[in-house]
Amino acid sequence: MRTKFDEQLNQLNQELMHMGTMIEEQIQKAVVAFMKQDTELARIIMDNDTDVDREEKKIENICFNLLMQQQPVARDLRTISAAMKMVTDMERIGDHAADISEMTILIADNTYVKQLDHIQKMASETVQMLMKSIQAYVDKDMEAAKAIIKNDDVIDELFLEVKKDLIAMIHANADCGEQATDLLMVAKYFERIGDHATNIAEWVIFALDDKNREG
Amino acid sequence: MRTKFDEQLNQLNQELMHMGTMIEEQIQKAVVAFMKQDTELARIIMDNDTDVDREEKKIENICFNLLMQQQPVARDLRTISAAMKMVTDMERIGDHAADISEMTILIADNTYVKQLDHIQKMASETVQMLMKSIQAYVDKDMEAAKAIIKNDDVIDELFLEVKKDLIAMIHANADCGEQATDLLMVAKYFERIGDHATNIAEWVIFALDDKNREG
Repeated sequence: MRTKFDEQLNQLNQELMHMGTMIEEQIQKAVVAFMKQDTELARIIMDNDTDVDREEKKIENICFNLLMQQQPVARDLRTISAAMKMVTDMERIGDHAADISEMTILIADNTYVKQLDHIQKMASETVQMLMKSIQAYVDKDMEAAKAIIKNDDVIDELFLEVKKDLIAMIHANADCGEQATDLLMVAKYFERIGDHATNIAEWVIFALDDKNREG
Repeated sequence: MRTKFDEQLNQLNQELMHMGTMIEEQIQKAVVAFMKQDTELARIIMDNDTDVDREEKKIENICFNLLMQQQPVARDLRTISAAMKMVTDMERIGDHAADISEMTILIADNTYVKQLDHIQKMASETVQMLMKSIQAYVDKDMEAAKAIIKNDDVIDELFLEVKKDLIAMIHANADCGEQATDLLMVAKYFERIGDHATNIAEWVIFALDDKNREG
């Protein structure tokens, strides 16, 4: 019995890594589509979001089956509980890849009114953070997970930079208002992806630790 | 032993209802603040979001303790699993109350350029939907939960109406672009609250049913 349980636990692990790869790709493509104003790619990303959603439900079902078929020990319960919560953050990251792509399509008729240095920096920082959080899960590396949580400030500060940029842009030219608001939304989506990557790191710590989550 | 477990399960139920009430109030206040352009109330709502977040972690901890201290039967496992997922949707609804309030503050310097009939309708439909989904949980009412899921189309259609309104508004007066985008975001937040209320209803069904979630 235990062997079958371990097999399923192993499958859970594989599927989580698979979902991690899916959302990494979605975000990376979303950044490319956004920077190059590639609406065709943006549309593909939006379409692929249903695959991410399907994978979330698949993982949830594995978790429930694990909980229900066996009497898992405490350590397994932590792993399964963390997995159940992590997929929500992963799915949400997938949503934001689609959100960014929607914005890419919305703005596509106009060229960008300014260099997008800060947003680009935010994007690459966020992608890094996401990849590290999934790697920390794969490696069961608590120190790496803690480092990710510390790093979230960097994204928050970059968001404030972007905000300042865009407000300056509106002051210089009121006609830019609409695009500025759209770009602010894109920056906000990246900020949220950073938050979800932080959550993933917190769940990694929860899975490895033996304490409750901090309130 | 079983009595203590039942007590904790009962506490879980109470806390979920409490969190439901919290987010209902947050959303209702967010609608009032938005319609009346009441920035003071909007700020209070944003501040109160930390209470919602704290309640989420409290409920998660109860769930983990239930899973770990005892060997729950299948029905209990469904309840606990559903609770663990539901709180994420509830917390997210709380976030959107704060998001709407942030927009309220952002727009506050300008009066609304048009009657907000469709957004107001969306708001009241969404609040209704949320209240019904929490009630379905309290009553363990599968039929009510199914009816909520069916009703999500109404919100989606209202969102399309709002979008059409706002695009017409921009065409009539290009200066309205910024406010139109902001209002579109508010409408989008209501749409998402509708999605999360649908998720809550799906978790109610999962908790009462004996099948996996549909992929």
